[in-house]
Amino acid sequence: MLDAGLICHFGVIMNGSPVILPTAYGRLGDTLYLHGSSANRSIAAADGQQVCVTVTHIYRLVCAWSIFAHSVNYRSAVVFGTAHLVKDHAERLAALHAVAEHLIPGRWDAVREPSRKELAATTVLAVPLSEASVKIRSGPPVDEPADASSQAWAGVVPISITFAPPEPDPEQPPGTPVPAHIAALTKRSGAPWAQ
Amino acid sequence: MLDAGLICHFGVIMNGSPVILPTAYGRLGDTLYLHGSSANRSIAAADGQQVCVTVTHIYRLVCAWSIFAHSVNYRSAVVFGTAHLVKDHAERLAALHAVAEHLIPGRWDAVREPSRKELAATTVLAVPLSEASVKIRSGPPVDEPADASSQAWAGVVPISITFAPPEPDPEQPPGTPVPAHIAALTKRSGAPWAQ
Repeated sequence: MLDAGLICHFGVIMNGSPVILPTAYGRLGDTLYLHGSSANRSIAAADGQQVCVTVTHIYRLVCAWSIFAHSVNYRSAVVFGTAHLVKDHAERLAALHAVAEHLIPGRWDAVREPSRKELAATTVLAVPLSEASVKIRSGPPVDEPADASSQAWAGVVPISITFAPPEPDPEQPPGTPVPAHIAALTKRSGAPWAQ
Repeated sequence: MLDAGLICHFGVIMNGSPVILPTAYGRLGDTLYLHGSSANRSIAAADGQQVCVTVTHIYRLVCAWSIFAHSVNYRSAVVFGTAHLVKDHAERLAALHAVAEHLIPGRWDAVREPSRKELAATTVLAVPLSEASVKIRSGPPVDEPADASSQAWAGVVPISITFAPPEPDPEQPPGTPVPAHIAALTKRSGAPWAQ
């Protein structure tokens, strides 16, 4: 479920308040990695703190005969763990590789690796997959039998996250070929995110 | 930005840990409303507490000549406020109406309203829009000039959330017409979520 996600929502407590931010992520074994600018206060604040990372997939709106029985078919993974900033150079590189490859598989080897200066400007956070809560809602609406005489339409409306054809950066030479790893994103549309 | 969203991620502190859950929401004036089962501990725990509600729109993967310059075009609204459970009957009904209409405009009037028993099984939470942080990333990749000699493809890959044609509940009479408010969901595909 984590590997099939696109982005996550990362939560940390700052000044007594939960703060929830959308961000990219990657997974290596039993560790989730997030990254941010060194100026990002929420990532830095998470060092040594209990955090939460949630990945949500939405599949269908569920339309029932009563408002009460309406729902959304979805899957969510809610991960809890004590986060820490990653200091080791090799682990930081591996984590950034995992984050990049999570969003666009095959991208890392196609472009320039981070420079020493860029690495210094990047904070990497590790969140152990020590505890997670998974929820799933699937299937058709579940109505009260008494509502079966309803004249209203009931059913589900599928929701998909899809990638449209890539749009080239106007600054690059015209005709630069679209590489296979970018074309593959469009093919990936509809699965697994549209289950 | 809030009205154009589909679901939100709701965060509350429980036992010293941030807990982030995906859920539906609606807005009335300067108040966000969430709802849940009366058995939902995270909604109940939010009464009188500082909470966070984040709505995220993802528009494009941004592919640059360096890994460091990769990004995601998105908009997010991060709302902070002290939540409270709604006890007033009229406000509870108005809140549930707002949540239902947020997901499927026109749905409330097409189906059976909540019964007294169903209302008793539902908790409604109000979150004032007292403080919010909005972030936007847009435009093409921003690379270092030195990377302009890269042979790699750069550009953006649009991401859309789309609704597929509705699938009728097998339990309803065959031929039940799809109402306009359901058909409109498919037409809504691509906008505003695909900006």
